Amino acid sequence: MSDIEWVFQAAKKIEQNDVSRAQQHQNLLTKPQGSLGYLEDIAVRLSAMQHNRVPEIKKLQIVVFAADHGIAEEGVSVFPQAVTLEMVRNFARGGAAVSVLARQLGAGLEVVNTGTVSESENMSGVLDQRISAGTLNFSRQAAMSENQLAEALAVGREAVERCLKASVQLFIGGDMGIGNTTSATAIACVLLGSVPESLTGPGTGLDEKGITHKVSVIKSGLLLHKGKMKTPLDALRCVGGFEIAALTGAYLACAQKGLPVVIDGFISSVAALAAVKINSQAKDWMFFSHVSAEPGHLAIIQAMEVRALVALDMRLGEASGAATVVPLMRMACALHNEMATFEQAGVSNTRRPKDECLT
Amino acid sequence: MSDIEWVFQAAKKIEQNDVSRAQQHQNLLTKPQGSLGYLEDIAVRLSAMQHNRVPEIKKLQIVVFAADHGIAEEGVSVFPQAVTLEMVRNFARGGAAVSVLARQLGAGLEVVNTGTVSESENMSGVLDQRISAGTLNFSRQAAMSENQLAEALAVGREAVERCLKASVQLFIGGDMGIGNTTSATAIACVLLGSVPESLTGPGTGLDEKGITHKVSVIKSGLLLHKGKMKTPLDALRCVGGFEIAALTGAYLACAQKGLPVVIDGFISSVAALAAVKINSQAKDWMFFSHVSAEPGHLAIIQAMEVRALVALDMRLGEASGAATVVPLMRMACALHNEMATFEQAGVSNTRRPKDECLT
Repeated sequence: MSDIEWVFQAAKKIEQNDVSRAQQHQNLLTKPQGSLGYLEDIAVRLSAMQHNRVPEIKKLQIVVFAADHGIAEEGVSVFPQAVTLEMVRNFARGGAAVSVLARQLGAGLEVVNTGTVSESENMSGVLDQRISAGTLNFSRQAAMSENQLAEALAVGREAVERCLKASVQLFIGGDMGIGNTTSATAIACVLLGSVPESLTGPGTGLDEKGITHKVSVIKSGLLLHKGKMKTPLDALRCVGGFEIAALTGAYLACAQKGLPVVIDGFISSVAALAAVKINSQAKDWMFFSHVSAEPGHLAIIQAMEVRALVALDMRLGEASGAATVVPLMRMACALHNEMATFEQAGVSNTRRPKDECLT
Repeated sequence: MSDIEWVFQAAKKIEQNDVSRAQQHQNLLTKPQGSLGYLEDIAVRLSAMQHNRVPEIKKLQIVVFAADHGIAEEGVSVFPQAVTLEMVRNFARGGAAVSVLARQLGAGLEVVNTGTVSESENMSGVLDQRISAGTLNFSRQAAMSENQLAEALAVGREAVERCLKASVQLFIGGDMGIGNTTSATAIACVLLGSVPESLTGPGTGLDEKGITHKVSVIKSGLLLHKGKMKTPLDALRCVGGFEIAALTGAYLACAQKGLPVVIDGFISSVAALAAVKINSQAKDWMFFSHVSAEPGHLAIIQAMEVRALVALDMRLGEASGAATVVPLMRMACALHNEMATFEQAGVSNTRRPKDECLT
């Protein structure tokens, strides 16, 4: 497993001086201090991450990792497994939600097939990096081998390396994979020490009966691999998915290379949780975009002690939630960079002592 | 008070057929039904409001109403009163938060001076419609006369009429006025039947002592006008502000003319609450942008039984919160208009019965 050691490399350090400088600048702008709320935090963090007085998100890349899941044969999704590959085509042809959002943002969109059941024909915008024809059914055996896990993590890292070569300033990862909320929930149970009942949700649209079945499938998987999942990497291997592991690899690489990343919904947050459990510094490079309608998502956000920008009841995955918040981040940058200071604008700052009359 | 009767005119009706048609379209798009959450609602509502299968927000106008408040002499703000006019200049010169956001959105920005203490010099982008040199101190007398209230409401309506002439598709109103959270809180107390202690907040940055003082100022105002505030219009006149009344007038005109509107923060929401208390149908034309850090805001949002898009701890006013959510609304439109349907994309919809194995 020596080709997996890279995941433990330290994250790039964010200079506290850069944070302070950006915060000081915010305090000079013509607004009551702190009144832009979370937008101030975003600008300050980005300024420090980019080591740049004028933070910006001009060039961003969305990478959607797609894969199939052996666990799908247990009937844990309302959609047939064929949808994974059908949606890969839909991404490439521009008809999916993330395709529309990428166009709106002027973002690059790359789809990485990390392992659909069927081969994807040659499609523009789709990279064929199939590790296998889907993972194995984790309720009967480990989802993947150690070599496959290493390969999936590397696929994520390589996507980030392509971004760096192209001078991308913000990385967004997304997922597509029928059955992957089942896999992600199982991973989250291991990493958070939770029971499936507390984290399992409807995914693409299960009813109560379907959720009960999904819980029992996850339980049997966790029971089967009990004692074998001592590390986050073990959890990814035993009950994970290729696209989830690729996301974890991508997030770790972003932190190591110093590329800010926006985390999407439930699947992405589980991958982020795994990344942070592997390397706690990885969190410094993450922005959390939204709290999804999938009930386990909020639990992960809370366990990670992070704050998501919005909560819009989205539950689509495929990077859609992360893409949605990019304009908020761009606005945060523009406000930071373009607002006048009190001095520049000739605006009086808070009352001088002689005006004080709150006695 | 005959020149105020227009506020009671019915709102334009939104056709239920248009809502159903847009919802049906959403359900055909390549995503699990409902998985775009609140973005679906936005697109469906806008489609119906615009009576247009392809809703859009190309042309939008931000109008910031500015005015001074007699109540400021009671020491209810950490900023001196001169800041109102200084900020008007900052808006016009492009250095304020809303100036930056308007540029980012490609939105028109108009500042309407409804009554600063000092006259504003001739400035490009600033309309001089001063009703008076600020309102009177409502802890000692009514903030304005009946004629002044009628004038302020009309100033708002006229801003909307200018928008309609310019084929604006979305209206955003904003406020600027040192002391106006005090006035807005007093109005909210009347309209919600609440006590000042439960709604009063720090505004631009009061400390605990300052808030206690602000509560006592509001209390004395409410006591003085007790029995005279039988209608929402009475409340606007007795303890309101010119810019707040102008916003109420604008929101009512938007509903009457059928122009969708995005409500900003605390001040704007109080104006919206007054509008809805005057004419309940006005609510149909409103989108609520954010929940601000001002504690009274959440109470108003809840009392109105509406949902705000985001909660970013913003508390700046000047339309900044409303401007911030416009990209989310534009994305909602783009998704509605550009996503492929299951049929177009050749993507399988939910499992056919023969695949069912959740038994």
